[in-house]
Formats: sequence, C-alpha cells, structure tokens
Amino acid sequence: MNMKLYSYFRSSAAYRVRIALNLKGLDYAYEAIHLLRDGGQQLKPEYRALNPDGIVPTLIDGDDVLTQSLAIIEYLEETHPEPPLLPKSPSDRAFVRSVAMQVACEIHPLDNLRVLKYLKHQVKVPDEIKDAWYRHWVETGFEPLEKRLANDRRVDALTFGDTPTVADLCLVPQVFNARRFGIDLSRFPTIERIADHACTIDAFAQAAPAQQPDAE
Amino acid sequence: MNMKLYSYFRSSAAYRVRIALNLKGLDYAYEAIHLLRDGGQQLKPEYRALNPDGIVPTLIDGDDVLTQSLAIIEYLEETHPEPPLLPKSPSDRAFVRSVAMQVACEIHPLDNLRVLKYLKHQVKVPDEIKDAWYRHWVETGFEPLEKRLANDRRVDALTFGDTPTVADLCLVPQVFNARRFGIDLSRFPTIERIADHACTIDAFAQAAPAQQPDAE
Repeated sequence: MNMKLYSYFRSSAAYRVRIALNLKGLDYAYEAIHLLRDGGQQLKPEYRALNPDGIVPTLIDGDDVLTQSLAIIEYLEETHPEPPLLPKSPSDRAFVRSVAMQVACEIHPLDNLRVLKYLKHQVKVPDEIKDAWYRHWVETGFEPLEKRLANDRRVDALTFGDTPTVADLCLVPQVFNARRFGIDLSRFPTIERIADHACTIDAFAQAAPAQQPDAE
Repeated sequence: MNMKLYSYFRSSAAYRVRIALNLKGLDYAYEAIHLLRDGGQQLKPEYRALNPDGIVPTLIDGDDVLTQSLAIIEYLEETHPEPPLLPKSPSDRAFVRSVAMQVACEIHPLDNLRVLKYLKHQVKVPDEIKDAWYRHWVETGFEPLEKRLANDRRVDALTFGDTPTVADLCLVPQVFNARRFGIDLSRFPTIERIADHACTIDAFAQAAPAQQPDAE
C-alpha cells in the first residue's frame, strides 16, 4: 500500500519530507491541507485526530501515523535505507544532523506561519516589526551556518560531499522560504550555492512548492 | 579521554545532554558558559570558535566538536548504544523522536532566553505580553502532546514504557522551565506525571540545574 502525505505546498516541513520520499523513490498519495483556507484546515477536528498538533506534515504508512518532519525522515531512513540520507560514521552523522537542526530548531520554528500570525494578531506588531523579526532569525541562523559550511572540509557540492543528506533537505526549503520573504542571501554564498545545486537534482525539483497539486 | 560539555545550568538543551551522558554512564568535564554574565559568554569569540551559533551545549569528544542537543544525543546513542535511549522498531522510534521534537522544535525554540530577550529589547513588548508569549507556546505545544501521551498505549511510567528515552530527556527540562516561569501545568497531568517520575531516576536527578557546578 502506498503511503499518504498530508502536506501544504509551501510548508517547509512538508517540503523536507517530500524530498526524502522522492530520493528514496517511494510513491505516495498527496493530501492537501490548506493552512489558510477555512481558518486553517490543519486545525479541523478531522485532521487533528491524526495530528493533534494541527501542523503539517503527517505521513501515513500502513497503521502508522507519523508526525514531525525530522522524525519522519529518520523513520524513512530506517525502513528504506537506500539511498542513505545520512553518512556512515557517527561523527559525520552528527555533523549532518546538526546542520539540519540548525535550520529545524533555530530558524524555522521562529519564522513559520503560525508564529508570524501570532505576532501580527496577538502581539499586534506593525508589519515592519514582523518583517524585521523574520529577517533577524534567518540571519541569526544563517550567519553561523555559513561559517560552518564554508570552513568544513566535508562540504562540497552539497553539505556532505555530493550526496544528498538530511542537511540539504532542511536547507533547500529554508532558502526557498527566505527568498519568498525577500531576504537578500548574497551574504551566505555557501548556503545559496548548496541549495541551488540541490535544486537541480530531480528529487528536489519535483518536491518544490510550485510542482505540488495544491500550488497556487 | 573524557568528554567535555559546555553547559549552562538552566539551559534546557544542555540539560537534555547531561541526562543522556548520565544514563549512558559517561564521565565528562563540565565547562560552564554563563548565558547572562559578561553580556553572554556564549557570544565570546573563544566559544564561537567552537560553536558559531553561540548557544549551548557543545560536546567535545576527542577531535569531534558536536553541537545541537538532539544531534549530540543521536551521536551518543550510536557510539555508546547501552542503555538505549530509543526503542527498537522504526515505528516506535518515530513515536519517541516525534515527542522529543514536539518539545525541541515547537516549544523550546520560541521560549528560550534569546527569543525572550529579543521580544523585550528589540520588539519592546511590555513584560505581560512577553509572559503571555511564553505561556502561549508552552500551552500550544503541551495541549496536543498531553492528548497524544494520554491516548498512546506505549506510554506508561515514562513516554515509552518505563525505560528512559530521548522523549523523556526533552520533556523533563521543558517541564522544569515552564514551572520556573510559573506556568500551571495541572491541565497536563500525563506530562507532569512522566516528568516527575523521570526526576526520581538518578541520571535525571543528577542532571538537574540545581546540581550543576554553576548553579546559583
């Protein structure tokens, strides 16, 4: 039985999982959850029965209901090991995972849709403060990440040599997202170069927001 | 050679790694990085040479400089598999990791010190708005997490049966942190019960902020 992915075309977390599924060559049914329509379809009881957090993605695999993008990707790595999305040695795996988590724990949680909405509607900040918030957390994360990537000998065309890893799966959606918000990334040439190269790979290109059934 | 952990007694992310090191029975040298003193010792060039993000923890193991708490814990799991901090089956591992990441990607990044400082000094919100922000993200994360934990048959004395896993390593510091900020957690009885039980285990008790050399 095919897997089913609950996704929103622009969600960075869903985008990561789409890339992983494509790299592993796994077919899946695409179920669109519109994060803005109807007050947010992710907040409806039907969806929350699957994913109480009310966020995307959710992956259904047989009886398993899987949430949290990086937990899903580790699951796919364990159940479908080829091609691997993590290097072999624990030290290299830690490097790759730490890059993934610099994006997934330090940047994305602060700049996603629900946080920006809370800032606007609950904290009631003007748009320029909200935009500065977005930019601040991208830059606060990308500045040290650029240094790490520019100085680590394991980095080549991609974060780890020229083989896609979970680090690239996190970088590409974050770069896409930052550009959509008009952030100038020219100060982060290594990050841009890696993300742009990754996007030339089929599995990444087909996971892009514009290629999804719910793209607008 | 012993490992060395750069830590701050109250840091949730460092607290997670301290518990993991204790559970694995690994000796380590404790290097205190004061997040407030001297404008934040984590921002000094000496420390940023190790950890460009300027955050704790950093773990030194031989030639390896490891960052990001969950990447460090996966590394410890791979290099010192006993006792395991993850279950055996991919499905159970995904469950445990998703609980860990509900805390590490949805709650903690929004409520840590540097975000609260940015809210206060850059966004210039009054203290009551900052406090409401803190409470909002704890509750937004804990409400669905409580439902998941209360309804999952794998949960017992701890998140996964009665064996400590990476989920408990993330829950305990988040509960500690929320209580320190005066959040009433009585609405989250399963979360409180698990965290309180975990704290009776030696490895958790000895990792508590009050037990650290830099405790105040």
